[in-house]
Formats: sequence, structure tokens, C-alpha cells
Amino acid sequence: MNYHQILTDITKKVQTLSDRGTSASYIPELASIDVNKFGVYLKPIDKKGCGVGDFDEKFSIQSIAKVFLLIKAYKIKGKESWTRVGYEPSGDPFNSLVQLETENGIPRNPLINAGAIVVCDILLDLLPNPKQDFLQFVRKLAVNDAINYNEKIVASEAATGFTNIAIANLIKSYGNLNNKVDDVLDLYFHVCAIEMSCQELSKSFLLFANGGIIPETNERILSLSRTKRVNAIMQTCGFYDEAGEFAFKVGLPGKSGVGGGIVAIHPEKYAIAVWSPKLNKKGNSYKGMKLLELLTTETDSSIF
Amino acid sequence: MNYHQILTDITKKVQTLSDRGTSASYIPELASIDVNKFGVYLKPIDKKGCGVGDFDEKFSIQSIAKVFLLIKAYKIKGKESWTRVGYEPSGDPFNSLVQLETENGIPRNPLINAGAIVVCDILLDLLPNPKQDFLQFVRKLAVNDAINYNEKIVASEAATGFTNIAIANLIKSYGNLNNKVDDVLDLYFHVCAIEMSCQELSKSFLLFANGGIIPETNERILSLSRTKRVNAIMQTCGFYDEAGEFAFKVGLPGKSGVGGGIVAIHPEKYAIAVWSPKLNKKGNSYKGMKLLELLTTETDSSIF
Amino acid sequence: MNYHQILTDITKKVQTLSDRGTSASYIPELASIDVNKFGVYLKPIDKKGCGVGDFDEKFSIQSIAKVFLLIKAYKIKGKESWTRVGYEPSGDPFNSLVQLETENGIPRNPLINAGAIVVCDILLDLLPNPKQDFLQFVRKLAVNDAINYNEKIVASEAATGFTNIAIANLIKSYGNLNNKVDDVLDLYFHVCAIEMSCQELSKSFLLFANGGIIPETNERILSLSRTKRVNAIMQTCGFYDEAGEFAFKVGLPGKSGVGGGIVAIHPEKYAIAVWSPKLNKKGNSYKGMKLLELLTTETDSSIF
Amino acid sequence: MNYHQILTDITKKVQTLSDRGTSASYIPELASIDVNKFGVYLKPIDKKGCGVGDFDEKFSIQSIAKVFLLIKAYKIKGKESWTRVGYEPSGDPFNSLVQLETENGIPRNPLINAGAIVVCDILLDLLPNPKQDFLQFVRKLAVNDAINYNEKIVASEAATGFTNIAIANLIKSYGNLNNKVDDVLDLYFHVCAIEMSCQELSKSFLLFANGGIIPETNERILSLSRTKRVNAIMQTCGFYDEAGEFAFKVGLPGKSGVGGGIVAIHPEKYAIAVWSPKLNKKGNSYKGMKLLELLTTETDSSIF
Repeated sequence: MNYHQILTDITKKVQTLSDRGTSASYIPELASIDVNKFGVYLKPIDKKGCGVGDFDEKFSIQSIAKVFLLIKAYKIKGKESWTRVGYEPSGDPFNSLVQLETENGIPRNPLINAGAIVVCDILLDLLPNPKQDFLQFVRKLAVNDAINYNEKIVASEAATGFTNIAIANLIKSYGNLNNKVDDVLDLYFHVCAIEMSCQELSKSFLLFANGGIIPETNERILSLSRTKRVNAIMQTCGFYDEAGEFAFKVGLPGKSGVGGGIVAIHPEKYAIAVWSPKLNKKGNSYKGMKLLELLTTETDSSIF
Repeated sequence: MNYHQILTDITKKVQTLSDRGTSASYIPELASIDVNKFGVYLKPIDKKGCGVGDFDEKFSIQSIAKVFLLIKAYKIKGKESWTRVGYEPSGDPFNSLVQLETENGIPRNPLINAGAIVVCDILLDLLPNPKQDFLQFVRKLAVNDAINYNEKIVASEAATGFTNIAIANLIKSYGNLNNKVDDVLDLYFHVCAIEMSCQELSKSFLLFANGGIIPETNERILSLSRTKRVNAIMQTCGFYDEAGEFAFKVGLPGKSGVGGGIVAIHPEKYAIAVWSPKLNKKGNSYKGMKLLELLTTETDSSIF
Repeated sequence: MNYHQILTDITKKVQTLSDRGTSASYIPELASIDVNKFGVYLKPIDKKGCGVGDFDEKFSIQSIAKVFLLIKAYKIKGKESWTRVGYEPSGDPFNSLVQLETENGIPRNPLINAGAIVVCDILLDLLPNPKQDFLQFVRKLAVNDAINYNEKIVASEAATGFTNIAIANLIKSYGNLNNKVDDVLDLYFHVCAIEMSCQELSKSFLLFANGGIIPETNERILSLSRTKRVNAIMQTCGFYDEAGEFAFKVGLPGKSGVGGGIVAIHPEKYAIAVWSPKLNKKGNSYKGMKLLELLTTETDSSIF
Repeated sequence: MNYHQILTDITKKVQTLSDRGTSASYIPELASIDVNKFGVYLKPIDKKGCGVGDFDEKFSIQSIAKVFLLIKAYKIKGKESWTRVGYEPSGDPFNSLVQLETENGIPRNPLINAGAIVVCDILLDLLPNPKQDFLQFVRKLAVNDAINYNEKIVASEAATGFTNIAIANLIKSYGNLNNKVDDVLDLYFHVCAIEMSCQELSKSFLLFANGGIIPETNERILSLSRTKRVNAIMQTCGFYDEAGEFAFKVGLPGKSGVGGGIVAIHPEKYAIAVWSPKLNKKGNSYKGMKLLELLTTETDSSIF
């Protein structure tokens, strides 16, 4: 399959759509991004990748980083990871506090804010230098040392992320955080402020398409079985209360971020990352969703 | 792969588990089933199937029939099917009324009771003889004329199905049922009271593994794209508030029923049905879940 | 205090308000009422009453009848009345099903639909001829045999009261109705379809201002202590999710109905009934609320 | 009426009850209080007061202070006070975050934590030296300069009050706090940490029984109309999700605190404060509720 040709064609189609939505406004630093940016990069497991548009420009990956958090904890703690966070779709918006109150501070899954905050707390207990160690881990996945936190975004979130501060304190009130709320949020805000390009992002997710092994280095990060389980969580929980929509229309495991990025993988085939800052009402990239829908529909290639 | 050997092995393992849960008690007729029944049948697309235990004994398929309802409506109405019911996981129990009230009588998806009731209403508008026509449709999918409604189960549900009556009336109060509540429920109670064996059930689901075509008759029921979409809905919504659990541990699109049946499919490979009446707290067959988890874990064969 | 003068003055003020809201549309028979009707009647315990406007025209008292239901059951069963229904404000709309689901079918209080339906079930067990006996009871309270059910309204509600049918079935599913749902609802729809004028209504509520004794006949219906408790329930629960508003602005125990009636009492002083069919968003008479607010504000006479 | 005799009698009765519940454990400093403390003080408007037990021992008034907050803001801002907080019963526990999320950060009423936090924010905008000015206000109400914040309790709450921190941040995320969260909470934690004895507390609430005027100094704090409205809020919202219970069994406007104190007033008659640290499941003093129930039941003196 000539992926470059396909990407070029569907990018054209998506670009003719009147773009709806707005960029994330609740993080001031994100609101200043040029909303016309658009990039996509597809990396097959065993071939060269190809990209269209602003595919090598870095952007804030935001919630996409929750997948890295999850596998870092899963890799170290295994099954035990699941005592303090579940793996069920929440059926609620990404930042909802309602379920925490009715379910004793146990987040539904690690891909909503509450869940990722609990995973940050787990990692604070496990890693000697949490921020550095975690960044090193992401660099390893991406086989790329030029990946960093954007401290401006960190500061912006720390100053305005009241909902996340509320979530962390509510979880703490149920005893489901061991560390200080400020320390947990410091890691969380850093993790969300990682910057990567579509090219880097697709490469860093390739292990999920490859049974848990980073193709370039041949290093195994997760067993095949656990990789499949993480893919399943991405499928059912990766898009908040639009997970069904994404499964229905795209049909690939993936994860979105309010920076406008979406990454998805096709097991045994490829990883793809797309970036377009305008978000739909559910907080997912409007054009990014459309592009991925066109990709799998036109190539009849969803996992289902 | 020698599926018969695998089924035999994992059945042994599952049978040594101390069985937990109880059979569905809220439908009196179901409560009288022998809880020690156990059957499993796997039907590959292009090979002979194989079964273990009570695989050719009929049982009440209950909610599994919601998938048949869905594709009957989807086949006729196409996209329009989705104006009155969504395709998002509910994150709530199968019989919850809460979301209906906050979401104006539009059920989250067609695989929870509320959604299937709306689909019944749609079919009442589309089919000249709804009950007969629908049964005929299921017989076609199963390539088997010996499939019937169990009228005793119908009567049992009609007499005690207060939650479903409540759901249907609440939907009606929001104007999302065109027909009389009693007529809608009559169809719904019939559909849930279809009886099939594991062997029949796996065969009737084979089209989902085969891109929308019934292998034996070569009849196309759904386009490839729509088949994938229905599979996606099964994956994200097929197990109520345990959809994440099933995706995580089994990793196949599927559907369960309170009769103790579960059916699942592996695209391009097979359909499998398992039956064991004791249900876990979420209303899914305890041993059925375990068997399917063992199957995909030991063969590393989930779709993810 | 010259109540007639006060009523005349504040009626004028209220009539100059641009009337907002609409009459209850979900009961077709109620939607046909002339929305410009307006009546008010105040009956002191020991003096002649006085009225303004359409005070002797009968209208459908609807939910106001829930208070009669409550005291009929309380009179017979005493404390035991409170095992199947509570006395807490619901904080939710009058017809909400949400709390029933999270609180196992036990309604929050007897003045929301769910609670009154449970009280109907209790009365079915207690009264030999429930509908006749209950009507007789209301006639006794009003010292008036010309009080009747409006069978057209009964038929209208029975045909379109889907939310109430849903509520009753949901309660039944939790085992909190002993009788058949249809029988319970038949009594409930009758009770709500009682017709009374403002004059009749104020007279029938005078016992609540008089420590449980009907002044005209000197018959004790409830002990002083129980009368105070019923008044307390009216205060905290009599106006659905506008109970706080009514307590804050009016400051009298009372009860509203979607027919546009409101009745309120001032302990040891009077009962007052007002009728104006247009309802605010919470389902309470717009002008009725305004008139009562003016009455107690201008006379500084709330119970607080 | 010989109040001293009555108090003595009902205290004896209450003291024979096997005390249930536990003292507030979520504020470590409160958990160390001797749970056997018991005091009650009743202050008529125009007569000497009388007390039984530990009536002159200071305790942490906690949420009772929310009433002082409310009237301080109401006194200055009048009607405008009600644009950022409502006056409806919440129907939920005192520290619930659920309604904030579904109602855009507008708390239901000023007597739940969320509402009092918003009132603190309002006062920060209105008062030059918020903490000193507020304390001065409470001293004026109590006609007593020996009233102070307990800084140990402040520190204890600041260190462990995660739920309140969550609430304040959630409100901030909806834009319903003007000031910094830390500043708002600093005032809130101080206000809750005021210490008063039953004697002091009953005196400071006497204005609510006296139409808004402090009897001893003859200073008007609120108009009669506003006083009645505050009393109405206490009646419908003063006991969280037990407001109905208190109205039903006691029938007086009042307010409780997790320090074990309850204060209630009878308009035109008296104010009464009771203190007993063990709390029932709803967070209200177990014996305090019982004593007040006995008081109004035996003297048939509720406002209803």
C-alpha cells in the first residue's frame, strides 16, 4: 500500500472541510498556537515512514503522554498496577469528578486525568528521579534524545489547572495518593507538557503495533499479552466520552490530547500520528479524527 | 491451530475453578436452569467447527439478540439508525435509567436495554410482521430454521420485567418511541427469548468475522465497513460496565446475555460461543469470561 | 388584619406582571384551560374567609392531593408510614427517576411523584374501597360532598403519563410496591385528578393551621405533633427543586400542583389557596408564587 | 415555661441513650476531643438563659459559622449575594462535588461547604481585613470579645482538608472565585475554626429569633424580611441531607457543625445551642439532634 499517496489524498480532503471547533483555551499557552497547523506521519513497522504537512513540528502531546505513564508503571508493577485504577470506559468527560465521588477515589481508567494522576503517584514511589527518569523512558521509546518538557506549558498549567488540582485533592481525600498533591501534580503537569512532532510520536508508539518491542532497537518494553491489553485500553478509553465514536468510525486503538494531537496504531502494521489544534466539543482534534476516519474507511483497514 | 484440543484443555481448566455467581434470578424461568451446564463451540470461517460439553443444547440468548436487532435495523436504515440511539459505552449497568433522564431519552448505544428497546421501535415501523420477520432474519443468519422464541420466557419477562417496562415508558416520555409501549416491549421480550445452542450461535455470528457475508450461503448482510462498525460497538459496548474488562482480558468483539451465553468473534478467523449460567456481579457469565480469557491469552490471539 | 384588602391589593400588583411560563402541556386536558384564570382565597381559622377573582371555580389540584394521600396513610399507619418513603428534600425535579435507582426504590419524600405512588400502594392495602374511601376522606377535610374526580383528566393522564408509569415500574422492580402497577397508578391518577376551587382547597387545608383539627367540625385528624411534622414536610419538600425558593421568599408550608394551584398555611392563623395556570420552569404557578411572596413580605408574616 | 427544668429533664433522657456515632475524624484536632462532653444552653429573647452540663466550655463551631458568613455578606451586598450561590437544599452530603460539576460551579446554598467557600470569596472582596473584620463581626453578634480562631484547628484543616481544597479549585475552574484559592481557603478554614461555648453560641444566634436585632445592644443587623429569609435557609439547608429529618423531628431553623454543635432558634422566643461530639452518619451530633427533638416534641413548640 502506498501510504504516502493515501496520506496526501486524504489530507487534501480533510483540508477542504470547513474547520470546526477551537483550540484548547483553558491552558493559555496552548491557546496561542496557530490553529492552521496540520501534520500527519505514518510509520510502518518495517518500512520507512512518510509524512504530510507540519509533521516534523513539535507540539504539546498533553494526554497522549498518559499512555507512556501507563506502560512505565505497568512495566514495573505488572498486575498490581490495577489495584488503584481500573480499565473501564468512564462514559464521562475527561475531567469529570463525579465518578471519583461515587467510586471512592478509584479512577475508572488510566487514560482520564484522574487515572493518570494516580499513575503519577505510583511512579513517584517507584522512580528515584521521577521527572528525569520518565523523560528518559520516553526518549528511549522514541529512540530520540531531543524530547523535552516545555516548562512554559508546565507553568501555564500549574497556574490555571484548577480542575486537575481539584481532581488530585479529591483523590487524596479518599486516600488514593501516597505523595503530596503538589508533587504528584508537578509530575503530571510535566508529563502533559512533553513536546513531540508527529514523526517522533508515531515512532514512539510503534512498539504497540509490534507486540511490545521497539522495532529500531529490538528492545522489549512489554510482553505481547500486556501490549494487547494496553491497546485494548486505548481502544475503549482513549478518547474520553468519544471512545465509541473513535472505535466506530476509525477502529484503531489510539489516544488524543488537547494539544490537537492524535496517535493510533494498527497491530502488526503501523503507528500514525496526526496534529491539528482545533478541537471538537469532546476535546479531540476535529480534523485529526476526520483524517483517521478517512484512512481506515478508504483502506478498509480497521482492526475490526 | 488445533482448536478442539485448545477448547478441551481450557474447558478443563475453567471447570476446576470454583464457580462463582448465581444464575439470573430476575427472570423466574431462567432461574430454573441447571447451573452446571457448560458448553463451548468455535466455528472458523472456512473449516469445520468444534465443540465441548453442552454445545448443542439450546439456551436463552437474551441480550445477545440485541446484535441481531442492531444489524437488522442498520441493514435497512443505514446511517439514519444513529439519530435515535448512540454508539458510546454507557459506563453504567445494562438496565440503568439515569443517563436516559440526563440525555433526553436517547440511549447511549444499541446494546444496552434502552438502546435495544429503541431499535425494536424502529423495526416495528420497518417490518410488516415484526416478530415473524425478525425470527426469519435470525434463521437466515444461522442458516437454520429450527430457531424459535420460547414463549414461556416471554411470558415470564412480561410479567416481571418491571425495569424494562420503566425504561420503555421513560423513553416514550421523551418522545423517542413511535409505537405503543406494549407493542415495543412485546417485540423486545420475544427477541430476548430466542433460544439457540452454542453451535447455532457461533454460526450465526460468523458473518461478523467474515466482513458481513454469511460464509455458508455467501449472502452479504452488511458492507465490510458497516460490519467493522458493528464489531467496534460490540467491543466497546457489548458487556455493559464490564466492556473494558472484556477488551482488556479477552480482546475480541462480543456480546453477553444473562442466560449465561457469550459470543465473540475474531475478524477473518472465527466465531465462538460459550454457555455457563452463573453470572458475575456485572451480569456476565463467570466461566464464559474465564474461558475466553484463557483462549486469547494462551493463543496470543486477541485483535489488539 | 384586613385580609380582603390585602388580597385585592396584591392581586392587582400580580396581575400587572407580564405573565411568564406556560400551562402544563404534558397532560392534554390541562393544556386546554384558559391561562388567564386567576383566583385566590384565604380562610382564617376562626373567621370568615375572603377571595378575589375566580376563587370559586374548580380546577385540577394535581400534586396538591399528595398531602391528602400522606395524611390518610399517616393517620392509619403512624410511624410505620416512613419505612417505605423518606422525608428529605430530593433536590431534583418532581418526576426524576435518578434517586430511585441509587436509593433502591425508596422515594425521598411523599410529595414527589415517586413518593405519592408508594403512598397509593400503602393505601391500596389499607382501604377496602380505595378510590371511594379516599374521596370520602377529602370531602370530610373540606366539609363538602361536592368534591369529585375528573374522569377526563384521569383518562388523559393514564394515556400519556409515561414518566409516572416508568416511575411506578421502577419502584416495583425494587420490590417497593405490593400491588399491581396498574392498580397503584389507577388510584394515583384519580387522586391527582381531584377538582377543587381555591375556596374549597383553603378550607380543606385549615386543619394544618389548626393543629390537626378541622375547625368547622372540630374533628381531630392528626395529633398536634404529627400535624407539625406534615407541615415540616410541606416546607422542605412541597415545591420540588424550588422548595428553598418558596421557603426563602414565601416562608410558609405549602404544596403546589401543575394545574396551577398552590396552597399554603400559616400555623394558628390561616390557609390560603391561589390558582393561576401558567407555570414557571420548575412546574410551579408563576403568579401564584408571586402573590404568596407579596402576601408574606408585605405583612411580614412568614413562619420564620 | 420553666426552660431549666425542661433542659434538665431531657438531658437526663438523652444521656441514658447509648451514644452512637463517632466524633469527626477527618480533622485530626477534632478527633482528640473527649466524646463524653455534653452541654446545652437556651437563651430566651427577653429573659435570662439557662444551661446544663458543659454549656460554658468552648468547642469548634465549624459549619455553624457558615451562618455568620452568610449574614455578613447578605448585610453588605443584599440581593446581589444570590447571583453566585443559590438557596435550594442540595439533597447531597455537605462535601459533595457532584452538583458543582452539573451546575457550573454555582453552589446550591451557602450552608454547604461549596457555598460557604463562595461566600468567603465574596467577603475577601468586601472586607479590608477579612479575618480580623469577620472575627469582629462575630464578637459583635455574641456581644463578647473573647471569641477567637483556634489556630491549631486551622492548621489541622489546612493540612488535611483535601475535599475542601478540591471543592474550592473546582469552583475556581468555573470562574466562580475571584480571589486566589489559597486566600479563600485560609479565610474559610479560619471561620470554621472559631470556638464558642453553647452559652456564647445561643446568644450570638438570638438576633435570628428577634427579627434581626441583637437584643442586648438593640443593634439591627438584618431587616425583618431578610432575617426570615436566612431562617428559611437554615430550615431547608442547615443540616445537609438531613435537613428534612431535622425539620420533621425538631421543626426549628438551625445549623449543625462537625464539632458536635447544633444551634437552633424559635422565632420570637429563644435560641438554643447544644454540644455533643459524636456524630451520626450524616455528620450531625447524635445526642444534639435527640435533645432538640425531645425539646420541641415535649413542649409542642416547633415553628410548624
